[in-house]
Amino acid sequence: QSSVTLWGRINTTVESQKVGAGDRKVVVANNASRLGFKGQEDLGGGLKASFALEHGLNSDNGAATGDFWNREASVQLSGAFGAVRLGRWTPGSYFATADYISNHNHDTGSSSDELYSFATFKQKNKVGYFTPTVGGFSGEFAVGAGEGAEPRSLDISGNYDQGPLHLGAGFSKVGSAKQFAVRGLYELGSIVLGAYVQREDMGTGANDSRTIARVSAMYVMGASEFHLNVGGSKAGGSIGSNGAKQYTLGYNYNLSKRTKVYGFYTAIDSTAAKSAGDFSSLAAGIRHNF
Amino acid sequence: QSSVTLWGRINTTVESQKVGAGDRKVVVANNASRLGFKGQEDLGGGLKASFALEHGLNSDNGAATGDFWNREASVQLSGAFGAVRLGRWTPGSYFATADYISNHNHDTGSSSDELYSFATFKQKNKVGYFTPTVGGFSGEFAVGAGEGAEPRSLDISGNYDQGPLHLGAGFSKVGSAKQFAVRGLYELGSIVLGAYVQREDMGTGANDSRTIARVSAMYVMGASEFHLNVGGSKAGGSIGSNGAKQYTLGYNYNLSKRTKVYGFYTAIDSTAAKSAGDFSSLAAGIRHNF
Amino acid sequence: QSSVTLWGRINTTVESQKVGAGDRKVVVANNASRLGFKGQEDLGGGLKASFALEHGLNSDNGAATGDFWNREASVQLSGAFGAVRLGRWTPGSYFATADYISNHNHDTGSSSDELYSFATFKQKNKVGYFTPTVGGFSGEFAVGAGEGAEPRSLDISGNYDQGPLHLGAGFSKVGSAKQFAVRGLYELGSIVLGAYVQREDMGTGANDSRTIARVSAMYVMGASEFHLNVGGSKAGGSIGSNGAKQYTLGYNYNLSKRTKVYGFYTAIDSTAAKSAGDFSSLAAGIRHNF
Repeated sequence: QSSVTLWGRINTTVESQKVGAGDRKVVVANNASRLGFKGQEDLGGGLKASFALEHGLNSDNGAATGDFWNREASVQLSGAFGAVRLGRWTPGSYFATADYISNHNHDTGSSSDELYSFATFKQKNKVGYFTPTVGGFSGEFAVGAGEGAEPRSLDISGNYDQGPLHLGAGFSKVGSAKQFAVRGLYELGSIVLGAYVQREDMGTGANDSRTIARVSAMYVMGASEFHLNVGGSKAGGSIGSNGAKQYTLGYNYNLSKRTKVYGFYTAIDSTAAKSAGDFSSLAAGIRHNF
Repeated sequence: QSSVTLWGRINTTVESQKVGAGDRKVVVANNASRLGFKGQEDLGGGLKASFALEHGLNSDNGAATGDFWNREASVQLSGAFGAVRLGRWTPGSYFATADYISNHNHDTGSSSDELYSFATFKQKNKVGYFTPTVGGFSGEFAVGAGEGAEPRSLDISGNYDQGPLHLGAGFSKVGSAKQFAVRGLYELGSIVLGAYVQREDMGTGANDSRTIARVSAMYVMGASEFHLNVGGSKAGGSIGSNGAKQYTLGYNYNLSKRTKVYGFYTAIDSTAAKSAGDFSSLAAGIRHNF
Repeated sequence: QSSVTLWGRINTTVESQKVGAGDRKVVVANNASRLGFKGQEDLGGGLKASFALEHGLNSDNGAATGDFWNREASVQLSGAFGAVRLGRWTPGSYFATADYISNHNHDTGSSSDELYSFATFKQKNKVGYFTPTVGGFSGEFAVGAGEGAEPRSLDISGNYDQGPLHLGAGFSKVGSAKQFAVRGLYELGSIVLGAYVQREDMGTGANDSRTIARVSAMYVMGASEFHLNVGGSKAGGSIGSNGAKQYTLGYNYNLSKRTKVYGFYTAIDSTAAKSAGDFSSLAAGIRHNF
């Protein structure tokens, strides 16, 4: 037996939610809790083999989510050339943009980014190449097999880190649907500012495109973090595809590097008729990494 | 990575069962087998963060049960004040009563207590407060969110341990259904005697209440344990809600602290017409903790 | 807590597949990836208790397979007398024959043996006895409970190992369906030759029997392995029950004892009309054990 690392995160909130025109209700909510197994083998000459299995679970009711290893199931060979990976994992185009600036609770649960376009978010049956990091730059190039049942997918992303400046971009395409996004994040001492702009083309014909934008700000004071996220997208329709504003105010208190207690207020103001797509939540929770 | 404890129990029996008026049949049966992950972090100042994930599995056929983490999925902060927990776990009112006196195979499998009222047994979407143990007393107070879909639930329980005397009580309520139970257990050297009485009100109108009672006795002789459980409930109807007698005779041989081989005979004599609710089983099995 | 061993295998290929008369397509495929937990306790006097939980997972898309612990869920007592096991596991009759000679990628994925008869392959609700190994011989005798719903099953197998010679046989029976197979494998220095012959009787009436045979050859040169498997079965019908030829050419390069990269070409030529049962695949992949 080799050395396998078991890790994960339980992130649970108690929330007072208002969904659409419904009554306000109390909800115990999961915020992307997970359990993972990973390991690495040194093959000599700089070559390494590794695997990762990551399971998403509902920390509020104990349910496993759809595909059990729905966050990652991969095997990889890496070396000076970079890395080649096979299997299922989260698109790099998402990590490089929307996820990167979500400092508050990392784009999970009811305060997650409802506006970012997931139309081309492909996780399964992928082959990926990851560049080594050169001069602060790293990139990912992934192709998802359609397996005769759906269109081939493509996901290309890059990240650039130099001192306090962090830039990223992502492009993805599934059939005729595609999206492109750029992101920046800057550290000004105890202040961190981030933003992304995304252009989506759902490839379904007329009125199938939109622009999405979001800014985030974090102020760190000792163990406390103060967060503000504001995003918006024009054009009518459902939240899913377009037309809404969203903002989140958050406060985190870090009990340790692994554990925090936090609270937030998040609200989505949809352009849908009669507040059908509106949502707001006042929440308090615990996030524990292990 | 932190230190995660991986633990569990495989508990499997081979049984000759007779269900209702059907033919006697041979069954390989699971007895609440489980696999768990847990960990704790010391946050300083007596404060601790911890998590628990506990999965119930069928050791006879390898199947996972409904919600995967159906035994526990929780995160907790604890200190001198007691503990606050969020998520899913087994109600304290059950552990304090029916489970506590089930020394034989701990209320699992075909010899489990079919008469105890599970009408208000709520596991999901809970917020709980656990008192510290003071003078032998400890208590749990848990509220389950209805999330706009079902009634709010309440579960209150307490345990008192002083030398050979162990007392417990539990109250739970989901909407208009409620139950209350008290339990006692006494250690007389190699003899252990226990009993509980439960009052159930299903909140469905007329004839919706019943009283359930059970006594248990254990005699320990070296590595051997001899068990006798007898329970009963009056009123007509199905076993599920009322009207049956149940008894179990059991023998355990402890091969170690972690492993036992055992046998039992259990029988349910239901008041349902034509033995529809009757059940009996002669069983032999292995329980291995890890 | 005891010492639990966490182990597994991620085995993923990228394949160009042609199924029946369909178009050739690119597929990312799982090859029997798994995650297992196992442990053993020394009970003294040569007696041991152990458990095994083994989960099959799809390394291409992250999905769990049907019954979660579908590869094994068992508890066992072992000693000088052999071992007694309860629960779910893979039939010994399969390991002793078809699996044993599948040196190339161990009978997994699209190059697995499509001709071996799985009609009596029973995994669940079993009680098994395993003999100790005496003079190179070991045997397994397992009975599967029908539990009043299906016929009782029987699985008997034996293995004999003496120097370079490895023999095996398996017999299994579920109701009126049965199969018997014998297998041999011989190591000639860097060449390994294997073969099995199986006789199946599906117990469904006329034309329900067939003979299946397969030979395998492996040539080892340093870290390289060259593989050839050829199998066949007479009689018309579907691949599932009879009538096809199958061959596989494989090349493995062992990066370490735990990790290999490999490629293969496999083809099934079915006797079904209009190539309905035909299949071929050209594949490249990574297998990483942990």
